[in-house]
Amino acid sequence: MPQHPPAHVGDAIAAIDTPALVLDLDAFARNVDRMANSAHGIRLRPHAKAHKCPEIARLQIAAGAIGVCCQKTDEAAAFVDAGVADVLVTNEVVAPAKIARLADLASRATVGVLTDDATNVLALSAAATQSAVTLDVYVEVDVGAHRCGVAPDATVALAQQIAVAPGLRFRGLHAYHGGAQHLRDPDERAAAIAAAGELARAARDAIEDAGIHCAIVTGAGTGTWRHERDSGIWNELQPGSYVFMDADYQRNTLSPDEMRFEQSLFVLAGVMSVPSVERAVVDAGLKSFAFDSGLPLVHNRPGTTYVKATDEHGVIDLDAGAVPLVRNDRVWLVPGHCDPTVNLYDWIVGYRRDRVEAVWSISARGALG
Amino acid sequence: MPQHPPAHVGDAIAAIDTPALVLDLDAFARNVDRMANSAHGIRLRPHAKAHKCPEIARLQIAAGAIGVCCQKTDEAAAFVDAGVADVLVTNEVVAPAKIARLADLASRATVGVLTDDATNVLALSAAATQSAVTLDVYVEVDVGAHRCGVAPDATVALAQQIAVAPGLRFRGLHAYHGGAQHLRDPDERAAAIAAAGELARAARDAIEDAGIHCAIVTGAGTGTWRHERDSGIWNELQPGSYVFMDADYQRNTLSPDEMRFEQSLFVLAGVMSVPSVERAVVDAGLKSFAFDSGLPLVHNRPGTTYVKATDEHGVIDLDAGAVPLVRNDRVWLVPGHCDPTVNLYDWIVGYRRDRVEAVWSISARGALG
Repeated sequence: MPQHPPAHVGDAIAAIDTPALVLDLDAFARNVDRMANSAHGIRLRPHAKAHKCPEIARLQIAAGAIGVCCQKTDEAAAFVDAGVADVLVTNEVVAPAKIARLADLASRATVGVLTDDATNVLALSAAATQSAVTLDVYVEVDVGAHRCGVAPDATVALAQQIAVAPGLRFRGLHAYHGGAQHLRDPDERAAAIAAAGELARAARDAIEDAGIHCAIVTGAGTGTWRHERDSGIWNELQPGSYVFMDADYQRNTLSPDEMRFEQSLFVLAGVMSVPSVERAVVDAGLKSFAFDSGLPLVHNRPGTTYVKATDEHGVIDLDAGAVPLVRNDRVWLVPGHCDPTVNLYDWIVGYRRDRVEAVWSISARGALG
Repeated sequence: MPQHPPAHVGDAIAAIDTPALVLDLDAFARNVDRMANSAHGIRLRPHAKAHKCPEIARLQIAAGAIGVCCQKTDEAAAFVDAGVADVLVTNEVVAPAKIARLADLASRATVGVLTDDATNVLALSAAATQSAVTLDVYVEVDVGAHRCGVAPDATVALAQQIAVAPGLRFRGLHAYHGGAQHLRDPDERAAAIAAAGELARAARDAIEDAGIHCAIVTGAGTGTWRHERDSGIWNELQPGSYVFMDADYQRNTLSPDEMRFEQSLFVLAGVMSVPSVERAVVDAGLKSFAFDSGLPLVHNRPGTTYVKATDEHGVIDLDAGAVPLVRNDRVWLVPGHCDPTVNLYDWIVGYRRDRVEAVWSISARGALG
């Protein structure tokens, strides 16, 4: 059922079958190195939900990452199967069948998971005991995302329960503020993480005051990671999108001293119809991009705008001064949101200059369970 | 790389691993039969881009469909590989590698394709000749969608070119008005198809006046099919979504005499966190639904609303009077837009009453090329 790869190593870029997910390998490598070199002694555990690709995880780990984050049990399985030795599922896992699969993974790798519920702790402990493994467990504290997690004052009881539960090892706190990543103003992002940090600090201090060592406070994303790094509270960073970037992250205003990551990820689309000089139609639509964060942006073609998508068509408007498009031209498009766009593809095609140098399997594509 | 199936035949619904794409087999079968019984002697060629599933195509053909439509060459390949004998790619195919693949398919099935360009006709003819096959070619006429296609008066020259091109058989016109499917008011939908019909009629008459037989006028979708059926112009219908339905189609107002199709498709999600009595979090987010047509709707739980999605989380708000949700509860969700949602899954789980009766491969999932 995986689709045929849209290219092979050695192919010219012009030979890539469209639409294809393509990666500028030089820009990508610079992004990987910039983040690895900026962690300043803090543990870096990049989020693999962005790429779902074991080859990329291996490169991140080779650059210094201590392992990866995943968001689903089956996503974690794809990375453990590929040899990644340390995986944290940054999510609650509550279904009995999923807990059993998670415990099975812990016989082959260091596996962590979040919790926000005492009954769930019992279930995790029972499964770990049954499988004769140890699961690392983190209490999720709600630091502003208002999604899962408990308030800071509720973390102590869970930490105490985990600390004495057979098969479990209490590792610390998960404190992630997703909404802060996409606040456009840099001061707003800084303020949101400062507030989140106070909540995380309160939880950590309360746990330590109860006599339980809170080894790790993990969180952060591509929009705010330097604030968590410099907070004195977090000691593990989870950014994911920085390897690729996307149109939504490009809309964040950066402060002058803020590190810029490069757009390395594109969807390469082919022109299949040119009904008029003002309009062209490409072969990439609703099944080639996620649209939750807006339309894709046309790269390096001034006056050329992706204005509308249907299932397999993208309509491109051309201003009067734009370079015309003809059938079989290629259009480079920047996805609105990288993570769910990557999840639409079986392969990522890496290129340098005019040649394909890598075709990597997106092994965890569709890993929902 | 396909993910493990979320269930097996004979499982209880309660055992389905979440999130999963699930199908009410009785409602689905009624939808298939209703459309088949309503074609009134007009050819029915359902659009397989909605389901991407050979098992569903087989059931549609068993009920009377003459074959299927696809939107991509690789999608067509998945259906030809599965034994479907007559496939129309309702799209322009212009890349040389794709044209070669399309011609290859025509050695194993009746294969049709659209065109809106004379150079493309030459390329199709060359490939068909090279592969010693015949491709059925339809001229796409723009009847209001303003996507691909030519104006009615430009169809004649293309039809003439196709009619004499080696390896090609001119079959007729493709006249599809996608935007009309989602006009909310029934009178607006009727008016849009009436206007489209005048354009299709003008094109057909001009081609016939030029001495070329225009055997087929094909088009229509789930929102407007009865207007095309009753027009006296179209003689082939291409609805796709009717087998499943979705939240967007539910927003269409129907006229009193209009046939209703049933919601047969759901995403079954699991509750993984209940931070408060007003909020629950399910395991289905941006990678479990397409969001181009809005958020999913909660099925059969009054006062319960899916309000926000992140990659792998869906936040559910509960009104004061709503039945509470607890961890591991299941929530049935109606996708905003069925086609791109189905494309996120490897399997569709069919059920009757409380049991899984079918687990079908979505073989053309991700077939973008």
